[in-house]
Amino acid sequence: MNMSTTIDRSHIEALVRKAIAEAGGLASSSGAQPGKPAVAPLGWVDGKPNLRVSISARHCHLTDEHVEILFGPGSVLEPDKDLYQDGFYAAKQTVMVVGPRRRMLPNVRVLGPTRPFSQLELAFTDSISLGIDAPVRHSGKIDGTPGCVLVGPAGSVQLDQGVIRAARHVHMNDHDAAYYGVANGDMMQLVIKSHDCSVTFDDVLVRADKAAKLEVHIDTDEGNACHLDAASEVILQKMPGACACGH
Amino acid sequence: MNMSTTIDRSHIEALVRKAIAEAGGLASSSGAQPGKPAVAPLGWVDGKPNLRVSISARHCHLTDEHVEILFGPGSVLEPDKDLYQDGFYAAKQTVMVVGPRRRMLPNVRVLGPTRPFSQLELAFTDSISLGIDAPVRHSGKIDGTPGCVLVGPAGSVQLDQGVIRAARHVHMNDHDAAYYGVANGDMMQLVIKSHDCSVTFDDVLVRADKAAKLEVHIDTDEGNACHLDAASEVILQKMPGACACGH
Repeated sequence: MNMSTTIDRSHIEALVRKAIAEAGGLASSSGAQPGKPAVAPLGWVDGKPNLRVSISARHCHLTDEHVEILFGPGSVLEPDKDLYQDGFYAAKQTVMVVGPRRRMLPNVRVLGPTRPFSQLELAFTDSISLGIDAPVRHSGKIDGTPGCVLVGPAGSVQLDQGVIRAARHVHMNDHDAAYYGVANGDMMQLVIKSHDCSVTFDDVLVRADKAAKLEVHIDTDEGNACHLDAASEVILQKMPGACACGH
Repeated sequence: MNMSTTIDRSHIEALVRKAIAEAGGLASSSGAQPGKPAVAPLGWVDGKPNLRVSISARHCHLTDEHVEILFGPGSVLEPDKDLYQDGFYAAKQTVMVVGPRRRMLPNVRVLGPTRPFSQLELAFTDSISLGIDAPVRHSGKIDGTPGCVLVGPAGSVQLDQGVIRAARHVHMNDHDAAYYGVANGDMMQLVIKSHDCSVTFDDVLVRADKAAKLEVHIDTDEGNACHLDAASEVILQKMPGACACGH
């Protein structure tokens, strides 16, 4: 829609700042400053990124077509619980996953919304239980990965590929990326300080876009290896380069 | 036994060196050198420690009394497979472990020899499956830990305590400790380089004695978090101190 008004840009910005300030959402009460965003970036608290580290338990993503096969014609995913990233949710629906040698996982949660391809994300421990040798892959990079059978109340689906162990990654928006001095596709390091079991995870892929909130995703094996629930400190940082200290 | 012979010490050492050299077990074919051990330290290869990293799957240790209760009067542990550390073995026997809320692990391997106390060592994932909140502890430090029920073919045992998640540690002998510049009770760092999932484990406790071979023990969660089986490099090092690089 093409708005034909004569109101100028600075006036619009002032109105927006005022409206947001009245709603309590402005990063700085003194208004926009040169070089600083006028509005608090998504997910920031007290003018800084608010780091969240989440454990992704095993789950699957489905296409619209597979939802109808598994749950019946006309079925759609029913949101049960919102995830931290806006627009994403755990669905009410679960599937049974069947691997080779008659092994299975009875209740694997479906996450929504639907996608152009179906994909099963397991921790390595899960994949061993299921008897599937799942490779570490980033979401969507499923060429040549193993398949499995998904079973729902209305039918079953043979996936020829799509079983992966999701590689650790961090969602962030462009403001977060600027704060850390990283770009989409870079690798970062996540340090978890836990009593008697501190761990540093390398190879944390940056997935930066306009809309994400800062959130690291690791799997249950990784979360358990460092006892994340009892962690005393979490630090996200750029991968250190070679330096004289030998690290 | 007190041997009353007049043969001198240097002659004995020469005889021992000769015998070992003939058996192909001498570190240096030119014989002992000042400051170097005359005989290759246990587990060393090519004059250096030979680092091994092993995943300890869930297992239990039993007292002699509990072996008899679980497997019948007069029963002893029957070695099935030697472990890397001399004198230790996986027994033929397994036990069923029962947790609260009717959850159980059907076949948990018993390791031998027997001990003065019974102890169940789980990965964190196992403890969640079993419904027991197992704390990270070093072997033998079981005061105040949760218990469980062990069930064998001849009877069952209620453990009032002893369920732990074994803290990561490294067995080594005194020569290994000297090589790394560490002492019994120190903490080290284990770096695992794996494609897309490299990890650095802090808090690796040094357990040094005269007889051990160099071997890091981590649990299945830790091994899976770094995909140990596919690792391209493993590095054991002293915990780095604070340095200018900020690591």
